[in-house]
Amino acid sequence: MENRVDALLVTDLINIRYLTGFTGSNAALLVYAWDSSEDRTVICTDGRYITQVGEQVPDLRAEINRASARRVLEIAGEWQTGRVGFESHIVTVDQHQGFQALKAGLDLVPIPGLVEQLRMVKDGYEVAQLRAACDAADAALATLIERGGLRPGRTERQVARELEWLMFEHGSEAVSFETIVATGVNSAVPHHRPTDAVLATGDFVKLDFGAVVGGYHSDMTRTYVLGRASEWQREIYELVRASQQAGREALAPGAATKAVDAASRKVIEAAGYGDLFVHGLGHGVGLQIHEAPGIAKTGTGTLLDGVAVTVEPGVYFPGRGGVRIEDTLVVRKGGPELLTRTSKDLTVVD
Amino acid sequence: MENRVDALLVTDLINIRYLTGFTGSNAALLVYAWDSSEDRTVICTDGRYITQVGEQVPDLRAEINRASARRVLEIAGEWQTGRVGFESHIVTVDQHQGFQALKAGLDLVPIPGLVEQLRMVKDGYEVAQLRAACDAADAALATLIERGGLRPGRTERQVARELEWLMFEHGSEAVSFETIVATGVNSAVPHHRPTDAVLATGDFVKLDFGAVVGGYHSDMTRTYVLGRASEWQREIYELVRASQQAGREALAPGAATKAVDAASRKVIEAAGYGDLFVHGLGHGVGLQIHEAPGIAKTGTGTLLDGVAVTVEPGVYFPGRGGVRIEDTLVVRKGGPELLTRTSKDLTVVD
Repeated sequence: MENRVDALLVTDLINIRYLTGFTGSNAALLVYAWDSSEDRTVICTDGRYITQVGEQVPDLRAEINRASARRVLEIAGEWQTGRVGFESHIVTVDQHQGFQALKAGLDLVPIPGLVEQLRMVKDGYEVAQLRAACDAADAALATLIERGGLRPGRTERQVARELEWLMFEHGSEAVSFETIVATGVNSAVPHHRPTDAVLATGDFVKLDFGAVVGGYHSDMTRTYVLGRASEWQREIYELVRASQQAGREALAPGAATKAVDAASRKVIEAAGYGDLFVHGLGHGVGLQIHEAPGIAKTGTGTLLDGVAVTVEPGVYFPGRGGVRIEDTLVVRKGGPELLTRTSKDLTVVD
Repeated sequence: MENRVDALLVTDLINIRYLTGFTGSNAALLVYAWDSSEDRTVICTDGRYITQVGEQVPDLRAEINRASARRVLEIAGEWQTGRVGFESHIVTVDQHQGFQALKAGLDLVPIPGLVEQLRMVKDGYEVAQLRAACDAADAALATLIERGGLRPGRTERQVARELEWLMFEHGSEAVSFETIVATGVNSAVPHHRPTDAVLATGDFVKLDFGAVVGGYHSDMTRTYVLGRASEWQREIYELVRASQQAGREALAPGAATKAVDAASRKVIEAAGYGDLFVHGLGHGVGLQIHEAPGIAKTGTGTLLDGVAVTVEPGVYFPGRGGVRIEDTLVVRKGGPELLTRTSKDLTVVD
């Protein structure tokens, strides 16, 4: 094989966490190919993490050196490793120049996105973390609504902070991304930042938020109506709900990602609102909130059993309001596993 | 000049925000040299940000294209720009290869860190943002203590969440970084993550946290004693306080960063605890929580009037406890301006 390498230098910290469990802020990992004559895989980090690397990665040789990538390449050179792949989608031009200046006698080969490919399919442990993150988000939203947190007179910012607080109370270790709370006309902005805008009777209120457990992210959007739903609100809500259901039902091992997008999008297009669904249908989710695979019109590739994704169609009427409904799911034979379990019935919050 | 370029391609989003005010998540900026025959500077972003780019950057030509860097390089090519600098410390090997594959007739020249150099010196608007962020953090900590939030029986995690909540209430738009609350033996870990460890009488409690206003970050550490201070706690606290004061007093335009580190460090070394001060003295702070300049033993360069930095010495006794005291300041002729104004007297919280 032309791209055959003897070892892979991994410098992306999320990829290192995925492969080893190490969560420090400085690391490089040199992974030798499976048929290497002995197991030479080595991780390098700096002095702040001496204890931590021993605890989190007890089974690998650990080097301590601030210049972590440089150090493992030196080791690769000492072992006359020959061809070493590197993450060319992560390594900067300056870093690459530094690697070459080492003159370690290595042939550095660009290998972009390899670990990201592996990360798409989640194993049982990873799905358990995703499930726990989704549970924390579900529980936080239920508590928010129960205690009257979604009511006319509160600001978007207040609701966002309370929702984040409740996620922590329910076991989240961080927020998955900046929480979106968008009321009234703001609900027409796909990625609105919470402001001091006040929730009012008759508003759509769109909430897009997530929890993190064990490093794994949840992602969910729900849209509610405050007070009473008007005719156009019911119509548009049911349309997005049907579109979202069609997208979920299209998730299957072997399905082309663009076919999944199309299954959901055609429901909205058939109603004449295709140009108001202004973004892709979804994305992979895991140690990052956005990761492979993308699910969009222009997507390539197909889904596999165990891939975790979001399905999140939306329709946005500028200056009026919008609806998005989003779940996090795991692709499975026999139908996807739904991780975000909050009801998607049109909910009128009084 | 050998490094003379006709234009600079800026792809780092923080640098683009600094230069233009644009805060979207996809952008490229092509800045022409001041003596260019006409003002051709152009920003490119994607369709999600059509409205936003017009509002935030009304004075620049805006292009709309998902492949933002590629698009502005095409424009540079159409204008036969010749030598175009790029941020070689940011641009990945794959991106660089993509730029070259455009065959736009450009000579791409690595220009690392230029905008970061400009960002070190803060103007009046920037200092006002930093001051507001530091005020929010000061106010949050005062409120936390007033309402009894720091008391035996609470967990590190509870204290961290409440402090973050209070920063939002006092006007912060985000947390500057993951809040550190470290009690008892955990205070000996420089960058401890909050756990369910319970605050107990006699503990050192170390709080390291920050607010964000207008994109600008504050950074402050305070260490308290719960209940009553023992002799060794008083001693070590006063030592770190004296060291921190020496570091602050060494801040001046023209001072070498390593001399500032040395001024603070020698106080701790003279007491025989030099090996327990395991990190650098401080760092620049602004649109990022860590930015140029670093202030450390191995630092190079000198300070300028208007540079914003932290001064944060610490002494850590493994298995016993530690103290760090940190302020955010602006270097000024006649003495630095202190932005984090919470008292540094040894405070015993009852």
